[in-house]
Amino acid sequence: MKTDKNKLAEIFPKGEKGSSETFTGNAYPTALVEADSVYNTIVGNVYFEPGARSNWHSHPAGQILIITDGVGYHQIEGKKIEIIKKGSIVKCPPNVRHWHGASADVGLQQLYIVPNIEKGIVNWDEPVTDAQYLINDK
Amino acid sequence: MKTDKNKLAEIFPKGEKGSSETFTGNAYPTALVEADSVYNTIVGNVYFEPGARSNWHSHPAGQILIITDGVGYHQIEGKKIEIIKKGSIVKCPPNVRHWHGASADVGLQQLYIVPNIEKGIVNWDEPVTDAQYLINDK
Repeated sequence: MKTDKNKLAEIFPKGEKGSSETFTGNAYPTALVEADSVYNTIVGNVYFEPGARSNWHSHPAGQILIITDGVGYHQIEGKKIEIIKKGSIVKCPPNVRHWHGASADVGLQQLYIVPNIEKGIVNWDEPVTDAQYLINDK
Repeated sequence: MKTDKNKLAEIFPKGEKGSSETFTGNAYPTALVEADSVYNTIVGNVYFEPGARSNWHSHPAGQILIITDGVGYHQIEGKKIEIIKKGSIVKCPPNVRHWHGASADVGLQQLYIVPNIEKGIVNWDEPVTDAQYLINDK
């Protein structure tokens, strides 16, 4: 795993390294708004070191990502990768598989919003292979 | 209105100055996620210059604020003011009046999340007077 060349802005605590069952590389998820029945919304931050990415996964009610610093990728299954960076907002519809993470050279700071959690939060699937990731990292 | 002593981080475009019908002072709201029936969630950013604040208002399904830089205030009607700053997360329950804005000396960059918008988005009320604001700005 490469060292991050850029020092990214840190708004939230870095937290603990995320599980290798759901992330490849060094990703640091931090919960900011826990599940409840008033707001029906969870919010959190993930710092992805360069090369780190989530597994493929889906959300029963979809997901909104807000990129606060760095450069990375978001891919909805069957579509081309989107390059995401500071200021980007991307959405993934309900029950559609996607993955997101840092670029190979620059890390990524991203907020996630999962709305309507009365429908469910997340279903995790298999890792994004190096071949899948590197095809995108052209 | 005082000049901002601190240069705050800008993640999103500053946008146009918000209406004096809903803000006191110089506030710059920017919509990031528009209303739709898939996510039922709106997201936006507001940059408040020092001294600027929203009017009193309420949200039929509540609101979540995420502070990305600066220092400011959040007050739920009938409760003490909360000082909010970079990294703070605050919530206001459904149908409860509140206001938020910058401190007198330092501006505020804040994301807002309004969930469950099928219940409504916002009901605007009267301005926060200088007396109400300055009591808090002790």
